[in-house]
Amino acid sequence: MERGPGTEAGRTLADIARQAGVSVSTVSKVLHDRSDVASRTRAKVQRLLEQHGYLARSRPGATALAPGGLLDFVIKDLEGPWAVELIRGAEEALHAVGMGIVVSAARERGGPSAGRWLDSLATRRTRGAILVVPELRESDHAELRRLGVPYALIAPVEEPPSGVPWVGATNWPGGLAATRHLIRLGHRRIAVIGGPPDRLSSRARVDGYRSALEEGGLPFDRELVRYGDFRHEPAYHHALELLRLPERPTAIFAGSDQQALSTYRAAAALGLRVPQDVSVVGFDDLPFADWVTPRLTTVSTPLPEMAAVAARMVLRLLGGQRPETTRVEVAGELVVRDSTAPPAQP
Amino acid sequence: MERGPGTEAGRTLADIARQAGVSVSTVSKVLHDRSDVASRTRAKVQRLLEQHGYLARSRPGATALAPGGLLDFVIKDLEGPWAVELIRGAEEALHAVGMGIVVSAARERGGPSAGRWLDSLATRRTRGAILVVPELRESDHAELRRLGVPYALIAPVEEPPSGVPWVGATNWPGGLAATRHLIRLGHRRIAVIGGPPDRLSSRARVDGYRSALEEGGLPFDRELVRYGDFRHEPAYHHALELLRLPERPTAIFAGSDQQALSTYRAAAALGLRVPQDVSVVGFDDLPFADWVTPRLTTVSTPLPEMAAVAARMVLRLLGGQRPETTRVEVAGELVVRDSTAPPAQP
Repeated sequence: MERGPGTEAGRTLADIARQAGVSVSTVSKVLHDRSDVASRTRAKVQRLLEQHGYLARSRPGATALAPGGLLDFVIKDLEGPWAVELIRGAEEALHAVGMGIVVSAARERGGPSAGRWLDSLATRRTRGAILVVPELRESDHAELRRLGVPYALIAPVEEPPSGVPWVGATNWPGGLAATRHLIRLGHRRIAVIGGPPDRLSSRARVDGYRSALEEGGLPFDRELVRYGDFRHEPAYHHALELLRLPERPTAIFAGSDQQALSTYRAAAALGLRVPQDVSVVGFDDLPFADWVTPRLTTVSTPLPEMAAVAARMVLRLLGGQRPETTRVEVAGELVVRDSTAPPAQP
Repeated sequence: MERGPGTEAGRTLADIARQAGVSVSTVSKVLHDRSDVASRTRAKVQRLLEQHGYLARSRPGATALAPGGLLDFVIKDLEGPWAVELIRGAEEALHAVGMGIVVSAARERGGPSAGRWLDSLATRRTRGAILVVPELRESDHAELRRLGVPYALIAPVEEPPSGVPWVGATNWPGGLAATRHLIRLGHRRIAVIGGPPDRLSSRARVDGYRSALEEGGLPFDRELVRYGDFRHEPAYHHALELLRLPERPTAIFAGSDQQALSTYRAAAALGLRVPQDVSVVGFDDLPFADWVTPRLTTVSTPLPEMAAVAARMVLRLLGGQRPETTRVEVAGELVVRDSTAPPAQP
């Protein structure tokens, strides 16, 4: 499926140029749809490019696909540290079959750069789409069906309509593993700061936490459960409140690595040390989890793998096959570093 | 330059479908180069799409450009936290003119996913390229010229050949501002951990540091200047060595935010507090600089703006114009947070 060495493409372009009686640069211009080529020359070169099976030869894995072989990758939050992990995974999976990825932000109508992402998808000549747009409406799904663009979702807020393939992280087992780890260290009063309560992923993580408490014979105390947002500020205030409780939790399971750093900050603000006074577990295992001090114990979310699975789902649809399953959860694992330790007090 | 409301594209597609006597889904399939459309139908729909000036109507800013209007964005390090900042900036600038961005990693021949990025560029039907590939060789530039693909570089290691447009950060002023800030706080023994010494950006930052020392009447002590890599491990060891010197520096200017976190770690390992025992300044102002404890004082690198400038340079070349200048340095600024303070000892 891999492409041949670099010189082959150059050699083919040179052959075509010679046969057409034009320069290599003209051949390249035709290939790239540049306007500064006479239409007769363009037609001749296009014919030769097709005859030479140029794209088929240089990309054996992509023979059935369009020239350029591109999928759209639309993500709501092109600012977050998650984005690049997902882009990398999708890019690698597509590169392996000679395809590429068009990255765009999911803009809503009327925003500062108006123009809905669904329209871009409709007018762009890509072959399918990977969507990281959590709040996809029923009307969006209807429009996607109407356009006939095969697509897969990553981490949707809710279960999409039946038949739409999607990939998520294993949130429930992640919440279970994080909380079990804290219980094994001897913690008995463990708080959780989740993401938005209307997200399946947040609810699954908190339910994993609750199951671990149950299996450890520990009470589920509503006071120790906070829902916010996966971002910094709300998490900071939740952590401050939790750490100021008369009966302070000795460990906090945060719903994201970013929320875990907010918990570090809240602990520092109160003169508490991590992990001596409070243990902290994150979720995601973003690169900075290994750079901060103390290094963060966290549940890895295999974001690149999730994106690769989504890409392969769309490729199957493009090949006329149904995905083997329309729902895949990719398993992460607990990565134990330095932010968790046995509690100081029994 | 903005696109019209979302319904317009849908209305046009419906019109074309009606005229061609086919479904909207078939029109969409032709637009997306799907193979499951009979060739006569395809030809008819293609003609109508062209007659309707469909792309010209829905993307007024892109009339002179190819269907799909895509630029390649090739980056060597699709893992680093820099990547997503650059992608966002380029994506926004291109979205504003109705174009999109194809993101790929710059792979070298013989790597695990063989296939050189230059070949992908040659075979993909994009209109130009933004390259974040620091070590571009003379032969790469020659190949790009031969292909006739307009391109611009972001943060090249060395000055590219004359006429090749490029964008960098203002490294020298950044080094100057970071060091002046430390001198004004009263620091007299200031160390620097730079990136690779063969990079223009590292050398410019260290030269800015040296100039600030000179203007402050402070000696330039080679022992306090370390070059590494912008990554974690080497920086950690440099910071450990610096903080173990008999006459310990009271401040460290790190060449990247990541190196600044390594300095935090080294300080913690030696029982030193930031900023009470050692002040730390980073470079880049990545999102996590505001999440870590203490919040990091750093020199912002306007990565999204740099990528937007590079995108606009390529658009000018595509429009047949020369860039106004082939070399742009985008200014950042010092962002003072909590990791710097006056030195404890005079």
